Amino acid sequence: MLEFHIQFNQDAPLYQQLYEYIKHDIQSGMLEAGTRLPSIQYLSRQLQISKTTVETAYDQLLAEGYIRSKPRSGYYVEDLNTAFFSQSIPLPQKKDTAFHGNPRNFRIDFNDNHIDQEHFPLSVWRRLYNQSLQEQDAYFYGDPQGEWGLRHEIVKYIRQIRGIQCTEEQIIIGANSQHLIGLLCKMLKNDTETVGMEEPGYHVVTRVFKDEGFHVFPIPIQNDGIDVSVIRSAHPDIVFTSPSHHYPFGMVMPIQKRIELLEWAEKEGGYIIEDDILSEFRYSGQPIPALKSLDKKDRVIYMGTFFKTLLPSLRIGYLVLPEILANHYREHFHVYQQTTSRIDQNTLERFMKNGHWEQHIRKMRKVYQGKYETIVEAVKTFMKDHAEIIGHPAGLHILLHIKSITNEEELEKRAGEKGIKVYRISESWFKKENNFLNGSVFLLGFGGLKKEEIVRGIQELSEIWFGNGE
Amino acid sequence: MLEFHIQFNQDAPLYQQLYEYIKHDIQSGMLEAGTRLPSIQYLSRQLQISKTTVETAYDQLLAEGYIRSKPRSGYYVEDLNTAFFSQSIPLPQKKDTAFHGNPRNFRIDFNDNHIDQEHFPLSVWRRLYNQSLQEQDAYFYGDPQGEWGLRHEIVKYIRQIRGIQCTEEQIIIGANSQHLIGLLCKMLKNDTETVGMEEPGYHVVTRVFKDEGFHVFPIPIQNDGIDVSVIRSAHPDIVFTSPSHHYPFGMVMPIQKRIELLEWAEKEGGYIIEDDILSEFRYSGQPIPALKSLDKKDRVIYMGTFFKTLLPSLRIGYLVLPEILANHYREHFHVYQQTTSRIDQNTLERFMKNGHWEQHIRKMRKVYQGKYETIVEAVKTFMKDHAEIIGHPAGLHILLHIKSITNEEELEKRAGEKGIKVYRISESWFKKENNFLNGSVFLLGFGGLKKEEIVRGIQELSEIWFGNGE
Repeated sequence: MLEFHIQFNQDAPLYQQLYEYIKHDIQSGMLEAGTRLPSIQYLSRQLQISKTTVETAYDQLLAEGYIRSKPRSGYYVEDLNTAFFSQSIPLPQKKDTAFHGNPRNFRIDFNDNHIDQEHFPLSVWRRLYNQSLQEQDAYFYGDPQGEWGLRHEIVKYIRQIRGIQCTEEQIIIGANSQHLIGLLCKMLKNDTETVGMEEPGYHVVTRVFKDEGFHVFPIPIQNDGIDVSVIRSAHPDIVFTSPSHHYPFGMVMPIQKRIELLEWAEKEGGYIIEDDILSEFRYSGQPIPALKSLDKKDRVIYMGTFFKTLLPSLRIGYLVLPEILANHYREHFHVYQQTTSRIDQNTLERFMKNGHWEQHIRKMRKVYQGKYETIVEAVKTFMKDHAEIIGHPAGLHILLHIKSITNEEELEKRAGEKGIKVYRISESWFKKENNFLNGSVFLLGFGGLKKEEIVRGIQELSEIWFGNGE
Repeated sequence: MLEFHIQFNQDAPLYQQLYEYIKHDIQSGMLEAGTRLPSIQYLSRQLQISKTTVETAYDQLLAEGYIRSKPRSGYYVEDLNTAFFSQSIPLPQKKDTAFHGNPRNFRIDFNDNHIDQEHFPLSVWRRLYNQSLQEQDAYFYGDPQGEWGLRHEIVKYIRQIRGIQCTEEQIIIGANSQHLIGLLCKMLKNDTETVGMEEPGYHVVTRVFKDEGFHVFPIPIQNDGIDVSVIRSAHPDIVFTSPSHHYPFGMVMPIQKRIELLEWAEKEGGYIIEDDILSEFRYSGQPIPALKSLDKKDRVIYMGTFFKTLLPSLRIGYLVLPEILANHYREHFHVYQQTTSRIDQNTLERFMKNGHWEQHIRKMRKVYQGKYETIVEAVKTFMKDHAEIIGHPAGLHILLHIKSITNEEELEKRAGEKGIKVYRISESWFKKENNFLNGSVFLLGFGGLKKEEIVRGIQELSEIWFGNGE
């Protein structure tokens, strides 16, 4: 009669120790195929444990297929390939992650993805989130397209502030720009193959187009935005543009060029993807109406986000689709599940409905305008003739042009050694040789810095780079 | 001298009314190209408004490109294609959305996507969310791969409960299964083209494989899971399977078949995607270790989610990648931004770290086991010989086999007319002709119903279908 000799310990339930013991013996080949296991009654007596404990261990071995049960006979070891188990499983080694989401390594980080941390209406958001969490909605998958209530608030907002006329049916919510563009690519795949991207521009989505099998090529920008004559001669199927706030120059595409672009799309059957990023933050004049507001022939796909305007950690963006694409979406793409938390969607709906969103945008425009003026003033004061600001008064960064020194890497490195992180604009080009700027140009984000940090940062950069003040 | 005649009202700021008035006149062609606008001083006197108001309106028209400014001369209307503006913009009509996320239309809805609403630790989650919201993290984009802290908790959990040895580097967080599978497809695209899916199975991801350009074909399941001999002869590049809890039958793949499947993958260089959905909820015996726990040659890509186990409205799932794919991801796919809210990730990290997750899973297993026993008992009591339960005691649904009546549509319709929603299992088949079940089989989810609703629902279904009890 087969006997088991087990030293039970306190680390795990008895049935689990018995199960692991027998499993080990089967895997190692010590218990051969066809071997009959001791009966439950016998083993419980031998090991002085309850019958239930033995039964539980046997049931588990049965469920996983290590043993089989023959009625009125007992339990037998299955015929397994035990050589399989003799291979060793190498234990993976833990590595360090290179990535850090927060700016831990620099005293002053001019990252233009950082936003203000002092003026977010934390208690309002918390209260509205807690309300949304208590709703029945939290326990159900939501609408794949995004919650109707949030889409309704977005319709109202973009009608009022961006001049866009659309319905809730045309709006699709999604976790980020890349996800939304990826979905769009799938919807357009049969008809379109080439995408013209502003150069320089927002190349985070360039990769998505490429991975979806689209051919992407750069279209140069001029002082007033994308070069429409190049679009006419290159005839892409899609043009990706930020007409109300170009990245990184910040310029606005004038009405004349907007009309030309729309006429191109109408005539050639092209689509324009309007990335309306940060159009809320212009510091001279009022917001510019969206290109989509002039789009009578439904050729513009509009993309809006809440990342930098609300909270980067929340994942909420949206598309406004032309009606024909919205119908196509409903018929063929509703199977794609929503990527944004339904609780977050309901919270944002409440936030918009109660007027907090418009109030927040108004407040943040003032806050960022103050920071913008601070950095402009600091550059004038400390850098004098060494540098000039290019680009337009908008968004969360300035472009700092160092005329006299062309070695960007060297300047970046020297700043970094003193704990200040600056960003080279040359990264914004699809092809490095398209960079038409002479000298060094840095993209300095100011949104996440306090005014005194901005002033100190510019002052220190000036000392590091030009040696003045020492 | 040009004169403007404006009736100002109280509805909008004065500058905006002036801006709209002039813009309208330019768009309609009433103000012709080259026309010189009145000077700021003149217009402010004529309309009895401040110079700042006029200046603001002019600045806006300038910024948008409707007018241009000539130094020491004044403002002139730009030469625009005014015919463009004469096209009318049709106002889209609002339509009703067919989709409802919540079960509003049925008294009793046996949807297997619904979960229990009484036992979620709402106040704990709220407290941890509020802590996470107050952290600096909320103001920064997070790690594209997912927060290290959450990945660390997942590593600990799947090691302990699922027997999986891996590092944080191998884990990728994402908003849902489709998003994660889509990312995986992009990573595998150059090497692989065919995917074998369990038939019947979880066809929500089938669509993703197809849209990513993969060839998908069904692999029949047997009593003990996927048919490995078919895999051997069809030699797909990838096999998608749920070995610890098949959908919808609920069976467990025994150890022998697991070894065969792994040996196939090792020999042929294939990948196995293990969808470990709901493996936590088995009502006989303990959880079955994951297939991934036996994977010595790193051929298994493991997928885990928190949708049905935590909250469907939260969008958090993850992949465990083999090391070679994890390296490939870090080198080439880190550009893809994270889709899950960083605040939610940090909240879940706290929830897991503090032991709430394991406690919740233990509690819910008991709750669902109680509901499972209730529905099994109710079927026996009310349906007697008319029906039998097939499939295994696990998950959030049973399969109800109505032996005597084959017209599923008719049964579904009659139930629906009385306010009870049931789901046909035939939808789980990739190809309808592969359905080997005789009679009608319904997939009845019980997770979201109270015990008394379960009993009443089964009783009423029995009356509707078999006419007993009336």
